[in-house]
Amino acid sequence: MALIVQKYGGTSVGSVERIQNVAARVKRYRDNGDDVVVVVSAMSGETNRLIALAGEISAAPSAREMDVLVSTGEQVTIALLCMALQEIGCEARSYTGAQVHILTDSAHSKARIMDIDHARVCADIKAGRVVVVAGFQGVDEHGDITTLGRGGSDTTAVAMAAALGADECQIFTDVDGVYTTDPRVEPKARKLDRITFEEMLEMASLGSKVLQIRSVEFAGKYNVPLRVLSSFEDGGEGTLITLEEDGVEAAKIAGIAFNRDEAKLTIRGVPDHPGIAYQILGPVGEANIEVDMIVQNIANDGTTDFTFTVNRSEYAKAMAILDGISTELAAREVVGDDKIVKISLVGVGMRSHAGIASKMFAALSEEGINIQMISTSEIKISVVVDEKYLELGVRSLHEAFDLAGESAD
Amino acid sequence: MALIVQKYGGTSVGSVERIQNVAARVKRYRDNGDDVVVVVSAMSGETNRLIALAGEISAAPSAREMDVLVSTGEQVTIALLCMALQEIGCEARSYTGAQVHILTDSAHSKARIMDIDHARVCADIKAGRVVVVAGFQGVDEHGDITTLGRGGSDTTAVAMAAALGADECQIFTDVDGVYTTDPRVEPKARKLDRITFEEMLEMASLGSKVLQIRSVEFAGKYNVPLRVLSSFEDGGEGTLITLEEDGVEAAKIAGIAFNRDEAKLTIRGVPDHPGIAYQILGPVGEANIEVDMIVQNIANDGTTDFTFTVNRSEYAKAMAILDGISTELAAREVVGDDKIVKISLVGVGMRSHAGIASKMFAALSEEGINIQMISTSEIKISVVVDEKYLELGVRSLHEAFDLAGESAD
Repeated sequence: MALIVQKYGGTSVGSVERIQNVAARVKRYRDNGDDVVVVVSAMSGETNRLIALAGEISAAPSAREMDVLVSTGEQVTIALLCMALQEIGCEARSYTGAQVHILTDSAHSKARIMDIDHARVCADIKAGRVVVVAGFQGVDEHGDITTLGRGGSDTTAVAMAAALGADECQIFTDVDGVYTTDPRVEPKARKLDRITFEEMLEMASLGSKVLQIRSVEFAGKYNVPLRVLSSFEDGGEGTLITLEEDGVEAAKIAGIAFNRDEAKLTIRGVPDHPGIAYQILGPVGEANIEVDMIVQNIANDGTTDFTFTVNRSEYAKAMAILDGISTELAAREVVGDDKIVKISLVGVGMRSHAGIASKMFAALSEEGINIQMISTSEIKISVVVDEKYLELGVRSLHEAFDLAGESAD
Repeated sequence: MALIVQKYGGTSVGSVERIQNVAARVKRYRDNGDDVVVVVSAMSGETNRLIALAGEISAAPSAREMDVLVSTGEQVTIALLCMALQEIGCEARSYTGAQVHILTDSAHSKARIMDIDHARVCADIKAGRVVVVAGFQGVDEHGDITTLGRGGSDTTAVAMAAALGADECQIFTDVDGVYTTDPRVEPKARKLDRITFEEMLEMASLGSKVLQIRSVEFAGKYNVPLRVLSSFEDGGEGTLITLEEDGVEAAKIAGIAFNRDEAKLTIRGVPDHPGIAYQILGPVGEANIEVDMIVQNIANDGTTDFTFTVNRSEYAKAMAILDGISTELAAREVVGDDKIVKISLVGVGMRSHAGIASKMFAALSEEGINIQMISTSEIKISVVVDEKYLELGVRSLHEAFDLAGESAD
């Protein structure tokens, strides 16, 4: 008998039939003696339908009103799921984000959860009810409706689990767990039974979009055991995301993440003086362009080369800004390439195992793949390569680190 | 410069283009110096779509969850209307029923408004903003979402106008005012410039479905001047619904209402003793069947005949109940007819003018229309006739009381 928070995404509640399937699964947990709190997203397609409506009215609708609009999506789902639960004899009660006081800051469309008043939820659980909470949404101190941004339902679930001290937070999705890499690229990709929060963070932020990054951060911070499961297959154990366990020899490599949406920009021959990085990246940040990798090499003749990557969709915008900066700084030239990808090796085991990087570079070199940029952190190594090498690169690394075998530690 | 509450129904906000038209009209009032609070319904079709979704899941969904579900309809509209207003340079802010604390009782799907906290709305008005409020919905003392039942947006608008002490509450609809009768039945039907609350109540409850009854009651109680206007034609004055003015000779007859959905049931030869009416109507009421007209004639040989009308859709159900009662009471027989209609003459002038009833009966008799039942109140006379006489009856009365002429007082 445990207290479990379950989260079902838009695809899992995408039709009446799927909502009924979710209700049936929740009931099995209840029949098994577990207390269940369910967090749901909007039915798939619904949020896009609402955004399109707004788009017909305004090219730049107010963020406050967008949140009022799109938060209706989850509200529909919580009501329908409660009806489906009640229909099969499972007492249930729905709550919007505002009703359970998921207090957030006022940053509409990307608000952060600050507090949850779980008194009502606890009372319902005690009374034997399943509680169904609208994901993705909250309310600020003025009583205005806020949303956490796309994928925010994961964060709602984790925050709910943390507030309630739940035994486990289960994220039901359309995949049955976290894989060593994308099975569409490497068919030998293997489902991981466990992964640490840190590894998951790197995997998620690098493009393995199973979970929203913030939900993993949150789960790590409050040590909420997080499990990714398939909402379409029953009986699977999914992947458990937990703290690194002491005494257990961690796998060297958890998996290989990649990101196809990268573009790189280089400004050559800028004066190498303090503050140059800010002079270059300040205007880019002010234009709301997110910068991913940043590499600066040592200076030559008092000048240096500065390279960074951005999302491919912002390449043209970033290039225009950089051209302006280049003139100001009297740089030699600005060059760029939007036909690149990033491949990253992730694993907490890197901390204690030397030679991972050289093994990675060797594997790529054997396939004739030229590495254009390298960036490392404590538990990951990322390289930028020509986009044509993505599949070959991922597969050669998967092979080199023996990730397909059960012996991959 | 006035404070005006405007209400737009589902048809008036049924598409993005219509929402933009509403925004344009609101802006004209603002440009004219008026303060405007707008109450809106769900886009036409939306509530039915949501109800159908629930219907796929449950034949009898929980009323609490139904309210959570359908209240999303208005929430979508308030957000879209605010965006449309902002797009044309009109500052606006949306509120759900819960956000402006439209406090209701807990009777889900037919809740009654008990209080409105208008502090936030007043602050917005003061700051020069248009306030857009979701109609039809409120929140109970537990924080649960409630709805006022279909057409409840009118009530929200009137309650809002009363709470704010607005100068006028304008109900925009798909007709340009209240008519002496339904123009589809009598093409000579004339738009009324004014009608009293009481007359409007009788007209509305008798089938002229321009306004929700409760909203008229509410407006009468708090003396909120109510105006019905077309949302598709500009410049019309519509019909103003107000208190009866002293010293002004009221029109004898305001109009002719009718109801096609009637069926009558008669139980013959029941013992004429005290409590007999309750013995007959008690079980009917318990079955949630609403009874409209009730007629009981004087007794004969210690027994009496008892007739009442119900909505045609409940005829079979009511008949079955009456058959059971008939056996219990050893009544002579039960007869019924579901091919009848009710025609009613409405006017506060009746109070002070004799001879209205006889003039009505004469007009019907001249056309050979047999009157099956008669029921009167202070300001209306209703007759039940065979349904085939509906159009003829309405037109002959319209003619007899000269309702088409401007001299119809």
